[in-house]
Amino acid sequence: MRCEDIVTEAEFIAALRRLPLHPGALGLGDDAARLGGFVVTTDTLVEGVHFLPDDPAGDVAWKAVAVNLSDLAAKGAVPEGILLNYPLSDDGWDRAFVAGLEACLAVLDCPLLGGDTVSLPAGASRVVTVTAFGRDATAPARSGAQAGDHLWVTGCIGDAGAGLALAQAGEGPAALLAAYRRPRPRLAEGRALAPVAHAMMDVSDGLLIDAWRMAAASGLAVTIALDRVPLSAAYRAYAGDDPLRAATAGDDYQLLCALPPEERPTGMATCVGSFAEGRGLSLTRHGAPVAVPERLGFEHRA
Amino acid sequence: MRCEDIVTEAEFIAALRRLPLHPGALGLGDDAARLGGFVVTTDTLVEGVHFLPDDPAGDVAWKAVAVNLSDLAAKGAVPEGILLNYPLSDDGWDRAFVAGLEACLAVLDCPLLGGDTVSLPAGASRVVTVTAFGRDATAPARSGAQAGDHLWVTGCIGDAGAGLALAQAGEGPAALLAAYRRPRPRLAEGRALAPVAHAMMDVSDGLLIDAWRMAAASGLAVTIALDRVPLSAAYRAYAGDDPLRAATAGDDYQLLCALPPEERPTGMATCVGSFAEGRGLSLTRHGAPVAVPERLGFEHRA
Repeated sequence: MRCEDIVTEAEFIAALRRLPLHPGALGLGDDAARLGGFVVTTDTLVEGVHFLPDDPAGDVAWKAVAVNLSDLAAKGAVPEGILLNYPLSDDGWDRAFVAGLEACLAVLDCPLLGGDTVSLPAGASRVVTVTAFGRDATAPARSGAQAGDHLWVTGCIGDAGAGLALAQAGEGPAALLAAYRRPRPRLAEGRALAPVAHAMMDVSDGLLIDAWRMAAASGLAVTIALDRVPLSAAYRAYAGDDPLRAATAGDDYQLLCALPPEERPTGMATCVGSFAEGRGLSLTRHGAPVAVPERLGFEHRA
Repeated sequence: MRCEDIVTEAEFIAALRRLPLHPGALGLGDDAARLGGFVVTTDTLVEGVHFLPDDPAGDVAWKAVAVNLSDLAAKGAVPEGILLNYPLSDDGWDRAFVAGLEACLAVLDCPLLGGDTVSLPAGASRVVTVTAFGRDATAPARSGAQAGDHLWVTGCIGDAGAGLALAQAGEGPAALLAAYRRPRPRLAEGRALAPVAHAMMDVSDGLLIDAWRMAAASGLAVTIALDRVPLSAAYRAYAGDDPLRAATAGDDYQLLCALPPEERPTGMATCVGSFAEGRGLSLTRHGAPVAVPERLGFEHRA
């Protein structure tokens, strides 16, 4: 997003907040709305913005579903179904998209509820929207962290960021490309962590920025131990022992949660920090302070 | 839509039908899905396809909401809320869009539930998606018409089609332009007609094609009396006494319903025909048969 648009986006959302809002909109401040017994989330992916024109169509389908189901995972919800708004383009792309959609829906055990197909003017960028519905959501909001809570994150961090760099270059290790192109929303972990968490959200824009957001929403300070950030063998082979790069890259789609100190979901997640009275983000490495970088992640991504 | 895409669209939807479907998807054969106690519908509008690049932004906002709420009206539902997926572009367009959205939501008494804002690559076509939720839907499907039922339609037919032609030419009577740009979904009429109708749907692609679709879905034949098609004074002044042109134009967003002969909702709708055993569409004018035109409406619009 260009710099002059940043103000516009904030203004646009502020203008939307002045419209009549549904109580389940939660003031447009959450990643998911509430409707009856469901949580609802929607994300639009734009060719050239959220995916590369050369990304395989099946991977775009997968990602369009997965980013939405990651929001459901962060609510501890069970996927109920999705709507798909899809622009028909060329036959091969469309067929590959459906194949990727089929694979993703099967793996994530989520049925199709409906949608809309449209045609696009010649040469227009593809714009794909998925809306996902979840049930039995038990997770707290991101704003519930308490001083003394520990910060836990599922899976490994940074693989998708490395995968994006590799995809832009053209090739690389399959594990890293897959982390970028076919992220696995942490649905089982979300359901397991939701009942014990004080705050939960997914990591979409980068570990540092999203942890900072959780702390800010909770009115607390957060400290992250960079040496504890979980890095995969594939990431280390590609980028070396660089947790700061990993923790400022986006597209992880892991879960971040604040847990009371007695909860220790080892095997499912890694403890990477803690919350305290105060505000802001601090970093350490092996106990020594580390300067916080100016760029924490994708701060203003629409 | 270009001819070679028509097969692709049908194939695409057929391919989607082979995916795991939610029971509320109703086989992807209805304009709205069912989710808990709600009906859900979604429509995407594409610049250059569903609206003109010169259409005022506020009118595009209105239309994006109205076409979805027309689907709710056809279900006899009360609007519960909408999601908006919106591409930020230039400041003036965005502001005008929000103003149109605000007006539409106020008039139609529908709150905003959530959504997503994205940026677009330079020069890309705007793609706006609205998803609408309704409650207390009591209307039958379009497939429930019975032999002997009468066919009723709300409002006037053809104004929006004339308005589109005028908008493309640059100007014309305000009433016709407004019918195209700011359609009023027939929510009150939908709620009133739903309990007594055998079949109901909205008229989005043209009276003849949509009536034919209702008859086909019900396994019946339908006859329409062209002399009874309700035409506005503005339409007659523009196009003369031409019900066939009106009945094959799109974007009316009126309601079409099959009612038993004893139901006569005059004042709210006009009786334009009847159903009988058999199949297909027949036309009359003052009792004499009229040849059915080759083009019944927007038959293959995505």
